[in-house]
Amino acid sequence: MPLPRQVFIAVIGAGGVGRCFLNQLHHLASHLCQNPAAPTYLSLILLSTSKKLLHSPDYRSLHLNSWEEELAASTTPALSPPDLADYLANAPNKVVLVDNTSNQTLADAYPLFLKKGISIVTPNKKAFSSSYSLWKSIFSAAANGCGAGGYVFHESSVGAGLPVICTLKELVETGDEVRKIEGVFSGTMSFLFNSFMPVGGGGGSFSAEVKKAKELGYTEPDPRDDLNGLDVARKLTILARLAGLEVESPTSFPVQSLIPKELEGCKSGDEFLERLSEFDGKMDELKKEAAAEGKVVRFVGSVDVATKDVKVGLEKFDASHPIAALKGSDNIISFYTKRYGSNPLIIQGAGAGGEVTAMGVTGDLVKVLRLLH
Amino acid sequence: MPLPRQVFIAVIGAGGVGRCFLNQLHHLASHLCQNPAAPTYLSLILLSTSKKLLHSPDYRSLHLNSWEEELAASTTPALSPPDLADYLANAPNKVVLVDNTSNQTLADAYPLFLKKGISIVTPNKKAFSSSYSLWKSIFSAAANGCGAGGYVFHESSVGAGLPVICTLKELVETGDEVRKIEGVFSGTMSFLFNSFMPVGGGGGSFSAEVKKAKELGYTEPDPRDDLNGLDVARKLTILARLAGLEVESPTSFPVQSLIPKELEGCKSGDEFLERLSEFDGKMDELKKEAAAEGKVVRFVGSVDVATKDVKVGLEKFDASHPIAALKGSDNIISFYTKRYGSNPLIIQGAGAGGEVTAMGVTGDLVKVLRLLH
Repeated sequence: MPLPRQVFIAVIGAGGVGRCFLNQLHHLASHLCQNPAAPTYLSLILLSTSKKLLHSPDYRSLHLNSWEEELAASTTPALSPPDLADYLANAPNKVVLVDNTSNQTLADAYPLFLKKGISIVTPNKKAFSSSYSLWKSIFSAAANGCGAGGYVFHESSVGAGLPVICTLKELVETGDEVRKIEGVFSGTMSFLFNSFMPVGGGGGSFSAEVKKAKELGYTEPDPRDDLNGLDVARKLTILARLAGLEVESPTSFPVQSLIPKELEGCKSGDEFLERLSEFDGKMDELKKEAAAEGKVVRFVGSVDVATKDVKVGLEKFDASHPIAALKGSDNIISFYTKRYGSNPLIIQGAGAGGEVTAMGVTGDLVKVLRLLH
Repeated sequence: MPLPRQVFIAVIGAGGVGRCFLNQLHHLASHLCQNPAAPTYLSLILLSTSKKLLHSPDYRSLHLNSWEEELAASTTPALSPPDLADYLANAPNKVVLVDNTSNQTLADAYPLFLKKGISIVTPNKKAFSSSYSLWKSIFSAAANGCGAGGYVFHESSVGAGLPVICTLKELVETGDEVRKIEGVFSGTMSFLFNSFMPVGGGGGSFSAEVKKAKELGYTEPDPRDDLNGLDVARKLTILARLAGLEVESPTSFPVQSLIPKELEGCKSGDEFLERLSEFDGKMDELKKEAAAEGKVVRFVGSVDVATKDVKVGLEKFDASHPIAALKGSDNIISFYTKRYGSNPLIIQGAGAGGEVTAMGVTGDLVKVLRLLH
């Protein structure tokens, strides 16, 4: 394949996903440079967190096996997005910016990077689920939109490394009619409800399950960031837009928050967790109601393309439904389309975690490398 | 996106899949030429069945809305693969050959086409599941192998339009360790066993279910072509090779045939169907045995990468296993990998049928168009 000889990589973010990505990049780089037909040399020329920066004025390669010590020792502050864009645009090779953050300011600058010919791969949901005008700016600048700039891919913004976005894009591009998208889009919510109300009975109180999920590291540091439904709403916004709906924002359709009204004023996640048990009775009622119908309760999102209805919240499912049978913190996404008829195309598996999220990003990077002739 | 201005398409095969593909091509062509940033004009310059041919010496476009009448009226015989390769290689534009047949002779000529710079998209399993030397010839010629020729994509050779091959490729390319691949890979076998032994009991005799499946059009014209397991063995060969195993051929590992030894000499599919009921007792025994263990019987294939074991045949699954819960003629494919841990990445849905198979081909065509700058 006529791959480019050398491509520069700039990575922002060195947390859970960033760390896994840098490992995967190391593996990929050592692999690609050995292709006898067309060796490609990937050079990490910049690595930055929100505070610290590693880079050089002459775009020298950073070391993929000692970045951690070097970053820790750095005293250079991070660049602002416009300065970063200038630095990357002046590089003597094609550049791929890997944004492993969930930073809105950086996301807002995507059109700027793309217009300067810089490609972007990222799991950052905020770029694709904030205002519809940002979405339009991104894809009117991108080469894989209707622009002449860099490429942009964001597979991991929904379902981590699961092939969700590429599958939906292909359904649309090949002329299938996507009718409905439905699923469990949050590893946290999946774990919570699979434990709270497993098929066949059992499960603890809702507040106890939330505490357990937090202890096991399945929630955000503040569990309210999962329970408010916004993370799922952002993913649904992305899928709905890819299916052709002009969704204005993740707050422009009904999203059920599992934070009781009375606890909205809690000053800390700890205070919230302390008081959540006061509302266990309400959740238990819901559980009994579903059980009486032979169903289970799950936190799902759905897009009905024909009616343009997008919604996120609790729903009841028959015990035999694939959504009910989900295990652990798995995601499941069902695409109902004209071609697939009554039985949907289903994708299922881990939808969160550093390694699988980074895999989606690395996979996107491989796609960009193929396109950057 | 810098798409090429004009790309020539040559289509071989106008049966179930070919017909659906031509419709999808019509839709795609009218779509791509309207892209304001970089219009692409797809021209169908050749259409052929095994007997008849439509083409012109000066590569004029055929009509996508009247090909059927024109092909019926044609008196030109099909070209041999070498003549076809010469004709396409001399075209003034890049050419994508769409092979919608299951023809071995054409498959054997893929290296020739690729070396001449012609790209190939196809659901033809035979090209990728015959001898390992053909596999090597194809990918050492292809631009997306280690050659300098055309591109080759074959998503629909396993699971029709389901994103099976692209997912496996991405797992491998991004450095995941694929440990096991397991699933139901045949729509016919799926339908047969979901009917013969549904979860919860019921189902008719095996021979009656085979007859029903044939009447509903779920089997090949001669059901023995499904029951011998070769179709599944071919798919497993492809997946095992993509996972890194040098599988010599689809007959180089254990494949269980559901054709009783005593009926191997039957002269026709009808005679076979007539006599199959003599063996219903044996299948009923199997069913009872599984039921006694709380299990169901399914016809599956699996690849164990570490032990290099590839096998195809009947296995028992717990009623709660996703393979047991399959519906209709759906396929299910589970990838067990290091990153996904104990819960596999699962892809499920219709794995046969003209529209979804053609969709995989059209999706591959879109991929090639992106790469053909």
